[in-house]
Amino acid sequence: MIFTKDMLVGGKHFFENDDPYLIAKKALRVNLSDLASMGAEPLGYLLGLALPDKNFDPDQWLSPFVEGLKDDQDKYHFNLWGGDTVSTTGPITVSVTAIGQAGNTVNLTRSGANTGDDIYVSGTLGDAAAGLLVLKEKMDPIKFEYLIKRYHLPEPRIELGKALSGIATSMMDISDGLLGDISHICRHSKVGAEIKVKKIPVSIALGNLLATKADYSSLIWSGGDDYELLFTTSPDKDQVIKELSEQLAIKLTKIGKITKGKKAMILDDEGAEIKYGKRGFSHF
Amino acid sequence: MIFTKDMLVGGKHFFENDDPYLIAKKALRVNLSDLASMGAEPLGYLLGLALPDKNFDPDQWLSPFVEGLKDDQDKYHFNLWGGDTVSTTGPITVSVTAIGQAGNTVNLTRSGANTGDDIYVSGTLGDAAAGLLVLKEKMDPIKFEYLIKRYHLPEPRIELGKALSGIATSMMDISDGLLGDISHICRHSKVGAEIKVKKIPVSIALGNLLATKADYSSLIWSGGDDYELLFTTSPDKDQVIKELSEQLAIKLTKIGKITKGKKAMILDDEGAEIKYGKRGFSHF
Repeated sequence: MIFTKDMLVGGKHFFENDDPYLIAKKALRVNLSDLASMGAEPLGYLLGLALPDKNFDPDQWLSPFVEGLKDDQDKYHFNLWGGDTVSTTGPITVSVTAIGQAGNTVNLTRSGANTGDDIYVSGTLGDAAAGLLVLKEKMDPIKFEYLIKRYHLPEPRIELGKALSGIATSMMDISDGLLGDISHICRHSKVGAEIKVKKIPVSIALGNLLATKADYSSLIWSGGDDYELLFTTSPDKDQVIKELSEQLAIKLTKIGKITKGKKAMILDDEGAEIKYGKRGFSHF
Repeated sequence: MIFTKDMLVGGKHFFENDDPYLIAKKALRVNLSDLASMGAEPLGYLLGLALPDKNFDPDQWLSPFVEGLKDDQDKYHFNLWGGDTVSTTGPITVSVTAIGQAGNTVNLTRSGANTGDDIYVSGTLGDAAAGLLVLKEKMDPIKFEYLIKRYHLPEPRIELGKALSGIATSMMDISDGLLGDISHICRHSKVGAEIKVKKIPVSIALGNLLATKADYSSLIWSGGDDYELLFTTSPDKDQVIKELSEQLAIKLTKIGKITKGKKAMILDDEGAEIKYGKRGFSHF
């Protein structure tokens, strides 16, 4: 069995006036993504909820929240096993503990990457962080709807996680940003990494935003909350990964190589390391 | 496997300036008590921690907190399996998910009580609620040290819970107060209950307090946070319970009977129902 726990705090991980329906889904999906990154099949979860004791209508808030839980329970065959609801003088706090069934093959961890391995990511990166910026800077919500949706509703890569069990040498989900998360793999695996910035997959929507706001381009490697899978494979797995990508209809992109050394680097077109201001992703 | 989750919020379930060492222990013990009430053996837990982002020194707070966790992990052979630490604009919030191994015999629930069953409690009741009052009303902390300790450090009845698996017909731990909790059993078992107030076990320390503050006597049946076990057995189990009490050195007291009907009642010496102001226990 695989256990994972993520806490979401109002004003830190979501806006307090966000639709409770979306908060519920995000709370489940962040945890489902954790299970996916360990190649596990979701079984059930426990829900802890701290709700404000003042200026807050629990019934009005809970009705769409429960609706959101229910929809994703059905979608991911994920069952509510118990929980606790308490009141707080602070912000809404949602604590989910998710339980999954590990696959038959070896558990996927952060510590199995080897020098010479290829580095892959699923989907596209930077969208969620860009979506958050769109909301914070009150940009056109219609024009950037896709990015906002990517921020509110990550897609846990459960089938992919399970399929990569036995193929990938290391894996995690991108919650802190590509550079921060590949650095975790490097530290645990005692290796380095070189990622080519040109190879990092970017959505059309984010490409459009970056065309006008070039200074946001670091979101591609520093933006968190994408919940895509980051994994390494031995270099003979090209064909297997290609087939898996087609079979699951999920874009899988080779973005770099595991190296000797200890440092994770993003390289520009000339092969020089891109210096960056911030390593990880601060939610708000 | 048995799962349980309890959230503790600063200002609601503990004082924000309580010793973090004690907060850690209480957070674990409340959950261990839940496992005990289901006759389960503790295995491990996940810890969610939301810590204030202002006017708070995490290192200073975490050092004794971790010490408290460690001591009770050792004491109860209970392992930390994972968790999440986040920051909050609100009070300290501790969310524990505990995982236990169910016994070989039938799972203990609230729904198995039968008409004619005896009702038992472990230990003494009302101490924790009295300890909280001592703190709130700033009474002599030395004189009432025992009650304060009962409030801060409940003793999860793990061995007793396991031993009662296969003997008790229903069981729960007293977190809301005797009357509220026996009412839960009655509702789930579709029965009534009559408890004699004179039979409810009271500690010497609480007896001393009540000698001067008689209006606190309702704490005995309405005071929560004792985390003693409340259970029912068929009436032929007198001897078994007596032996178990001696073997584990835990006081087990027969306090009443399960009845037809649907209502749980506390009866005075004349057999009349004691009317009470509050059913349960509001922590603060």
